[in-house]
Amino acid sequence: MTVSPERTLSTTEPQPTRAEIFASHEGGKLSIGLSTPLRDARDLAIAYTPGVAEVSRAIAAEPALARRYTWTDRLVAVVSDGTAVLGLGDIGPRASLPVMEGKSALFKTFGGLDSIPLVLDTTDVDEIVETLVRLRPSFGAVNLEDVSAPRCFELERKLVEALDCPVMHDDQHGTAIVLLAAVKGACAATARDLRSLKVVISGAGAAGVACARILLAAGASDVVVLDSRGIIYRARGGEKGALAAETNPRGVRGGIAEALRGADVFVGLSSATLPEELLATMAPAGFVFALSNPDPEVHPDVAARHAAVVATGRSDFPNQINNVLAFPGVFRGALDVGARRITESMKLAAAEAIFSVATDDLGVDRIVPSPFDPRVAPEVAAAVAEAARRDGVTDGH
Amino acid sequence: MTVSPERTLSTTEPQPTRAEIFASHEGGKLSIGLSTPLRDARDLAIAYTPGVAEVSRAIAAEPALARRYTWTDRLVAVVSDGTAVLGLGDIGPRASLPVMEGKSALFKTFGGLDSIPLVLDTTDVDEIVETLVRLRPSFGAVNLEDVSAPRCFELERKLVEALDCPVMHDDQHGTAIVLLAAVKGACAATARDLRSLKVVISGAGAAGVACARILLAAGASDVVVLDSRGIIYRARGGEKGALAAETNPRGVRGGIAEALRGADVFVGLSSATLPEELLATMAPAGFVFALSNPDPEVHPDVAARHAAVVATGRSDFPNQINNVLAFPGVFRGALDVGARRITESMKLAAAEAIFSVATDDLGVDRIVPSPFDPRVAPEVAAAVAEAARRDGVTDGH
Repeated sequence: MTVSPERTLSTTEPQPTRAEIFASHEGGKLSIGLSTPLRDARDLAIAYTPGVAEVSRAIAAEPALARRYTWTDRLVAVVSDGTAVLGLGDIGPRASLPVMEGKSALFKTFGGLDSIPLVLDTTDVDEIVETLVRLRPSFGAVNLEDVSAPRCFELERKLVEALDCPVMHDDQHGTAIVLLAAVKGACAATARDLRSLKVVISGAGAAGVACARILLAAGASDVVVLDSRGIIYRARGGEKGALAAETNPRGVRGGIAEALRGADVFVGLSSATLPEELLATMAPAGFVFALSNPDPEVHPDVAARHAAVVATGRSDFPNQINNVLAFPGVFRGALDVGARRITESMKLAAAEAIFSVATDDLGVDRIVPSPFDPRVAPEVAAAVAEAARRDGVTDGH
Repeated sequence: MTVSPERTLSTTEPQPTRAEIFASHEGGKLSIGLSTPLRDARDLAIAYTPGVAEVSRAIAAEPALARRYTWTDRLVAVVSDGTAVLGLGDIGPRASLPVMEGKSALFKTFGGLDSIPLVLDTTDVDEIVETLVRLRPSFGAVNLEDVSAPRCFELERKLVEALDCPVMHDDQHGTAIVLLAAVKGACAATARDLRSLKVVISGAGAAGVACARILLAAGASDVVVLDSRGIIYRARGGEKGALAAETNPRGVRGGIAEALRGADVFVGLSSATLPEELLATMAPAGFVFALSNPDPEVHPDVAARHAAVVATGRSDFPNQINNVLAFPGVFRGALDVGARRITESMKLAAAEAIFSVATDDLGVDRIVPSPFDPRVAPEVAAAVAEAARRDGVTDGH
């Protein structure tokens, strides 16, 4: 990350130094702990042979007991092939591992869930699916992470079909859930109606597609999506073709300038810089979500001259759109009730739960809760669990 | 486990009850811990975005840094397909998981190593190899566990070829290392010479084959191995064919009765009961290693009438032959020096290290150290690391 002087000044405490960052990652960030210490031969005889044979025999007779007597019931596999890591691109599985360890640390801290990073030395979608199918008895859920688009769409779809457990590509749906919560928060803070907003999403990668979909599912009626070739306006291959059919109801053509003119909401997910003069063409009192990390598409202070609500992915500005508001609670709720998959309504319920926590102290600078608000994950988990039960995708827990 | 009244009486404290065992396994036995807690936005910015990007970028530029900045450097994958679990046989991967969690608990407690249980829903050797090759960037070593013979021989051989990291099937080599240490201890306690002993090994499964091999490598010259068809005396398929060429130098034919007559050492690894009248035909002052679990081939009190040294796998009798004396130190030593594989001399060094700890307080009832002797794992690790360096299989650590 290149830290500009401006940003350094705007933080309340010194940015971590390079040396501090590397020291903190030395030896990795995770370790295995024991539920019960092994102090003597008796402990050993309970946890290992001969005692453990009783437990294995019980599971062999009744496989569902594996949920009760192993850690899989709360264990998320954090899976990546290292093809789209942060803003660094395809840096491979080994280099992605520190990110996956970090993700596991977040799962533990915010969701109370255990997780194991599994980084794969293959980028073949079918090989990844096959690998996780073979490993299925080892975990309880799959968090896909940092897999490049458009492969991520096919991979997630095939995994959901192949595995009888929750699977979620966080770069798609975690982002989408938090964005929806933020849009709801912004609407509530400014007395706007989501359904009447003209929304522009810049970027049709993993996050862009999922954000468009969840906004439409939540009632938005006018969503325009751009990729590197401009506004998506007619059927193209794959996900974008499908997206064209659901978006751009006014048939707008052109690029970001044409899209933004008169728009109420800008959602930046493409790292492309957004010039101030284009922002100025948006409708008054709109929302700017400049979500690229670490460099937002437009500086929040600049965006604030033209918008009523400004949000970024950064912790050093108000309204941080951070996936950690969603994924720990989503997986926790899904695992708590033994959900076989994560449905659309479970995602919508997660967004609603995040929004409802924010409503306690809502404002144009407080459209989402802080990632450290301890109410968020439990509220999200409860809402997701309830939606899973409603959808009938639980094992009757 | 069926606890006979005799055994219950011979323990010094009450056996764990079934209820106690199940309660202890509830929720599984492992959890994920964080090296550094995430308390605020600054911690998050170091452990996750944006700070972690620095670390990922460094590993992308220099892959060897993954050892330093991820947990893989001390991470063992505990891998099973559930085909030969304890004495329970092929109970499948789900039912094997409590055992693998227990193994991970032992790795942590005795070797200070982290490990993740990976149980596989395939019994195809090539598919297991392929799966672990794809997962290679996720771990630092592979402990194979409870894989049935003869598949385990092929699987281990192919994994060693395919992976550039330590791979060991503990049921083979862990058992063999501790048996060798115990035979050395018994020899020292009774002033016998390993090279002149007539050894009978009952059982030609994973452990039996490995025990025969390590005793031969350590200088034994007269080893007779039996399988369910009797004494192995001429070339048959697979591992047994190879074994026939190295063992049975006197060309003994027949079954256990013919094998035991005049033998100095009995090693039981087959669960077959050993009648006292056969024991009585052994040479005087021999060694009986009745290693089947939970039921030894012969009760130690009975064996003691005919042998100078008696050992079992049980913690409630003297001379417990327990793999935990070997595998934590073996993997720890191998990982400490970045060994690419586990060589024969590393295994021999491990046995010698266990034996040398025992020599401090040697006796016919103390031929091996207690599994809880804190000197064992560090001594084994140091000896294994030194042997790895001598063999030139390290990355120059």
